[in-house]
Amino acid sequence: MAAPAKGENLSLVVHGPGDIRLENYPIPELGPNDVLLKMHSVGICGSDVHYWEHGRIGDFVVKKPMVLGHEAAGTVTKVGPMVKHLKPGDRVAIEPGVPREIDEFCKIGRYNLTPSIFFCATPPDDGNLCRFYKHSADFCYKLPDSVTFEEGALIEPLSVGIYACRRGSVSLGNKVLVCGAGPIGIVTLLVAKAMGASQVVVIDLSASRLAKAKEVGADFTIQVAKETPHDIAKKVESVLGSKPEVTIECTGAESSVQTGIYATHSGGTLVVVGMGPEMIKGVFRYCNTWPMAVSMLASKTLNVKPLVTHRFPLEKAVEAFETAKKGLGLKVMIKCDPNDQNP
Amino acid sequence: MAAPAKGENLSLVVHGPGDIRLENYPIPELGPNDVLLKMHSVGICGSDVHYWEHGRIGDFVVKKPMVLGHEAAGTVTKVGPMVKHLKPGDRVAIEPGVPREIDEFCKIGRYNLTPSIFFCATPPDDGNLCRFYKHSADFCYKLPDSVTFEEGALIEPLSVGIYACRRGSVSLGNKVLVCGAGPIGIVTLLVAKAMGASQVVVIDLSASRLAKAKEVGADFTIQVAKETPHDIAKKVESVLGSKPEVTIECTGAESSVQTGIYATHSGGTLVVVGMGPEMIKGVFRYCNTWPMAVSMLASKTLNVKPLVTHRFPLEKAVEAFETAKKGLGLKVMIKCDPNDQNP
Amino acid sequence: MAAPAKGENLSLVVHGPGDIRLENYPIPELGPNDVLLKMHSVGICGSDVHYWEHGRIGDFVVKKPMVLGHEAAGTVTKVGPMVKHLKPGDRVAIEPGVPREIDEFCKIGRYNLTPSIFFCATPPDDGNLCRFYKHSADFCYKLPDSVTFEEGALIEPLSVGIYACRRGSVSLGNKVLVCGAGPIGIVTLLVAKAMGASQVVVIDLSASRLAKAKEVGADFTIQVAKETPHDIAKKVESVLGSKPEVTIECTGAESSVQTGIYATHSGGTLVVVGMGPEMIKGVFRYCNTWPMAVSMLASKTLNVKPLVTHRFPLEKAVEAFETAKKGLGLKVMIKCDPNDQNP
Amino acid sequence: MAAPAKGENLSLVVHGPGDIRLENYPIPELGPNDVLLKMHSVGICGSDVHYWEHGRIGDFVVKKPMVLGHEAAGTVTKVGPMVKHLKPGDRVAIEPGVPREIDEFCKIGRYNLTPSIFFCATPPDDGNLCRFYKHSADFCYKLPDSVTFEEGALIEPLSVGIYACRRGSVSLGNKVLVCGAGPIGIVTLLVAKAMGASQVVVIDLSASRLAKAKEVGADFTIQVAKETPHDIAKKVESVLGSKPEVTIECTGAESSVQTGIYATHSGGTLVVVGMGPEMIKGVFRYCNTWPMAVSMLASKTLNVKPLVTHRFPLEKAVEAFETAKKGLGLKVMIKCDPNDQNP
Repeated sequence: MAAPAKGENLSLVVHGPGDIRLENYPIPELGPNDVLLKMHSVGICGSDVHYWEHGRIGDFVVKKPMVLGHEAAGTVTKVGPMVKHLKPGDRVAIEPGVPREIDEFCKIGRYNLTPSIFFCATPPDDGNLCRFYKHSADFCYKLPDSVTFEEGALIEPLSVGIYACRRGSVSLGNKVLVCGAGPIGIVTLLVAKAMGASQVVVIDLSASRLAKAKEVGADFTIQVAKETPHDIAKKVESVLGSKPEVTIECTGAESSVQTGIYATHSGGTLVVVGMGPEMIKGVFRYCNTWPMAVSMLASKTLNVKPLVTHRFPLEKAVEAFETAKKGLGLKVMIKCDPNDQNP
Repeated sequence: MAAPAKGENLSLVVHGPGDIRLENYPIPELGPNDVLLKMHSVGICGSDVHYWEHGRIGDFVVKKPMVLGHEAAGTVTKVGPMVKHLKPGDRVAIEPGVPREIDEFCKIGRYNLTPSIFFCATPPDDGNLCRFYKHSADFCYKLPDSVTFEEGALIEPLSVGIYACRRGSVSLGNKVLVCGAGPIGIVTLLVAKAMGASQVVVIDLSASRLAKAKEVGADFTIQVAKETPHDIAKKVESVLGSKPEVTIECTGAESSVQTGIYATHSGGTLVVVGMGPEMIKGVFRYCNTWPMAVSMLASKTLNVKPLVTHRFPLEKAVEAFETAKKGLGLKVMIKCDPNDQNP
Repeated sequence: MAAPAKGENLSLVVHGPGDIRLENYPIPELGPNDVLLKMHSVGICGSDVHYWEHGRIGDFVVKKPMVLGHEAAGTVTKVGPMVKHLKPGDRVAIEPGVPREIDEFCKIGRYNLTPSIFFCATPPDDGNLCRFYKHSADFCYKLPDSVTFEEGALIEPLSVGIYACRRGSVSLGNKVLVCGAGPIGIVTLLVAKAMGASQVVVIDLSASRLAKAKEVGADFTIQVAKETPHDIAKKVESVLGSKPEVTIECTGAESSVQTGIYATHSGGTLVVVGMGPEMIKGVFRYCNTWPMAVSMLASKTLNVKPLVTHRFPLEKAVEAFETAKKGLGLKVMIKCDPNDQNP
Repeated sequence: MAAPAKGENLSLVVHGPGDIRLENYPIPELGPNDVLLKMHSVGICGSDVHYWEHGRIGDFVVKKPMVLGHEAAGTVTKVGPMVKHLKPGDRVAIEPGVPREIDEFCKIGRYNLTPSIFFCATPPDDGNLCRFYKHSADFCYKLPDSVTFEEGALIEPLSVGIYACRRGSVSLGNKVLVCGAGPIGIVTLLVAKAMGASQVVVIDLSASRLAKAKEVGADFTIQVAKETPHDIAKKVESVLGSKPEVTIECTGAESSVQTGIYATHSGGTLVVVGMGPEMIKGVFRYCNTWPMAVSMLASKTLNVKPLVTHRFPLEKAVEAFETAKKGLGLKVMIKCDPNDQNP
């Protein structure tokens, strides 16, 4: 594979609130354990849009230009001298978080909690919404031929669902409540069903989102409006025949957390994904999900393809972000390889 | 529902090695927490056949005539005065083990280990291969209309698979090896897939059994003959691409246990179901499986119907046992209700 | 042992808010699985005092006269015909909750969650602050000679500590924060140390309570006053050298729960004992604690004796309650046997 | 601290079966994440003696000269440029296994299973029985002033006990059987007691070893000779009053494993430490033990000091090995710092 010419690395860069630009970046140099990737598909996440709109998420502030993107898959074009399990031409999914040291969290297998972790598109670390990107080989996972690049990119949001269902100990025959039918709610639904949940009910404000949930396998959906958490909890119990053993809250709205508290079976588990209110123990990202996600996608244990509703070439990334910001569809995918815009 | 006349309770009774008889038993009297059941479908288990052939299983010896059968479903015809959750007409699956006291095992939720437990068709306790049978209401589980009696009866072998997969901690994306494609191997396969195993490989000596495994969802099957455990383990690794995280041994053959030891991934789990060699920690029956099994069957999480390969009316129970003894097919079902021989 | 004369069963009865009376009750009749106990030592719990002062705790309302007391030990004087493991003369500790049916919670070993459970001194069920009391033999635990009756009675509050530490997964080498140095805080401290916690810090408003905590083994104590939760959390981190892996909140005060949230290590566990605010998953009573508590007390794994600060004979029970209400000392013990007022 | 002169690094080197020599090695060069340690105390392990006698352990063969020693503590004298948490003068305990890559095992927190791991004194990796040794800073743990170097060195065998007790889920109030009263049996006993085991019984062939077990806290000891495993199991049950919930086998003898199988409570756990027979799932080394071990030793949760029965200066290392080979005492400690031979 011919080396790309200098300046050929088109990248989507956020400079501050409201300011994203397509710019040419240098091709990165590899360390001994790195691989260079030709990017293929990168999904836009709510956090990418948030950095664009606000220039920060909580304590993470964009202080210098940062490449966006962390839901990604591409092709290995070059490998560092110590890399053993990958070679040029391998198609891989990218786990965006790479620990920089083997600290106490890493040692116990919860490397997602390592404070000094490198994480794509979290200030100050660059993401992979670009033509060429380097990454630690240990955190690139080879895709079999039967798994598309877009499926590979979707392993990142899927991982949030896997980790949430694991934390909730979803098990065979469980009844599960999923609050929210956005991308995270949908992957949580998919994972809960794949883990053997007998009945999953999804609640949301939006009828179109619930229609998608129904399409991909929800046993029941409930559209909510101004009901109290108590009333919604009663509806959930009514459609399931009993209270759910597990509730997974994916909206971050306090009233939805309240619903989860009222709805969940005594002795059951409520998991709050992402930025829930400070008082509830939640879930921060994920760890140990990529290899099994690749295996599941290869064996068709679940199907994430319906999540992608829009596609844009990298050159139209700003337009793609405008679409994501409007909340249209479910997942907007950016195609970084000008020669291959397939899924 | 009219009370049955005296002597109408046709029952299949084992008297000793090689001696089973159809006899008329009295209709049992109910205690305050009991229900009387009109039996509908009862599967024949290997242990039933074993009691018939040998008059004993290990320390459990048939010293007085005992009604056989413990994989069963029927209809409630009468309830004791303390019974709240069931009423005449309810269709139920029967969990055959009922603790007689709340001892140390019962208190920790492992009531299957209670030494004084009542267990259908384990000497000296009568089973339910008969027209009318009484049972503790707490251990009868109402079947929704969408679940057939035979599915209800199959919850008993299914429970062995559920318990084995739980003990093995089968989880989403796992690769699983199932040794044996008899009824227990088949239900273990079904449960492992329902729990999200990405790839399940089943091994057996019999091509026809493996064909059934393939039909109900095995990703791979391997017919073995005289290979060494090491060689079989290598084949398993080869078809899966890596060693299985979980192996569930369902044959009880020592060479198969050896295969499991060689085949399983470092840090993985080997579960030996039933009468494995004394040196390996195994699985004894099951507990806490019925409610979730009913829920799974109702929601079609898995399909046990293909297990039933033969059906006989109760009047032909001896012929049914002959068939089971020959190892023909997978599961022989006895139909106890002369007015309803449907599944 | 001579049978007590009719009317000899002096009992402490709550009739409504502010109304407790010493009355003669009949000696109870035994069921087949019951034992009759001559009561020896019964501790007064905050809930007993609360029923006296308010006539209710939440939804549990004293609608008819109820005998108080549920932290108790006594001597078997008579056994029902089915009782096998106890005989007259056996000294026993009493687990106050007895499931009335083997329901879904009981089957999974969480019998404390069974809604229909009998529970001493929770309306409408009578407690054991009396001369003679009957109880299910399965929930009476024989005390070895080396364990006193008062230690036996203290197993009840001790169980709250055991269950809280289990839920918090306190493990060897952990740093633990205990909020509150009342009886529950003190037993939680004892249990955390016995489980191998390397450092336990206890916080409370009261210097005298903290002195007791220090006496029984706290590595550090912090007296708090008007500091913010953030400030207290910083002090905790400062004395421990790092944040505690486990925090066990035993006060029920919302500000203390906030302290627990700020103080606990990322990925650690916060357990809220008893009546915490509705939004946090808490701990309800206990299960599976008596046998191991007896074993621990017999082997001197921990020492609960220093908890008892006051003793009153049953005849002076009202005075005992006045003392408990004033918050004097730690645990007030009522001695029910007029012929033996020893510990 | 003045740099040591060239050739000052006296090291104990095994060249092949029966051939150990004291030789001068160069002072190692540091990588960016390494620290250079002046060694202080290094315990002799059975495996060190085994490499000396046989030149191999299983597949690990001494093909080139290898420095022995992996139970060690010393003082930091120099740090690589990336090291943040250590500085010259820090006293540290050394975890001997350092993963060379973040592979699948490392990611799930079981880094001890990483095949490419560096491990002191396991061919071809050099150990630390020498004057100066370099190690990854992430696997050196600072000792507080209250913990001696020897205690720090003993964290290695202690870790085997911690890991075994964790795998056995030893919990508060458990009865535990420890088979073997050698160094591993003794630390397992200490850890089981520290985890709250109410009664620990230790069995061994040697009366003097059992005396040591009794001295450091065994509730019971049983000296065995030619009894069958069944008979020994009965004795264990007899002294404990019931079967142990957990058995930890530390001898590797097949008959002792058999004893464990017969002795352990139904539903309990049998853990086989180290080189058990191939058919039982065992324990391989340890992970995630150093930080909590340091914390425990600092807080005096347990006391490992009585394990050390002999001390030799590094110059007399061969004599020390002769002593260890004879099985005299419990733990032989080699003192590597000519200027400080204190514990």
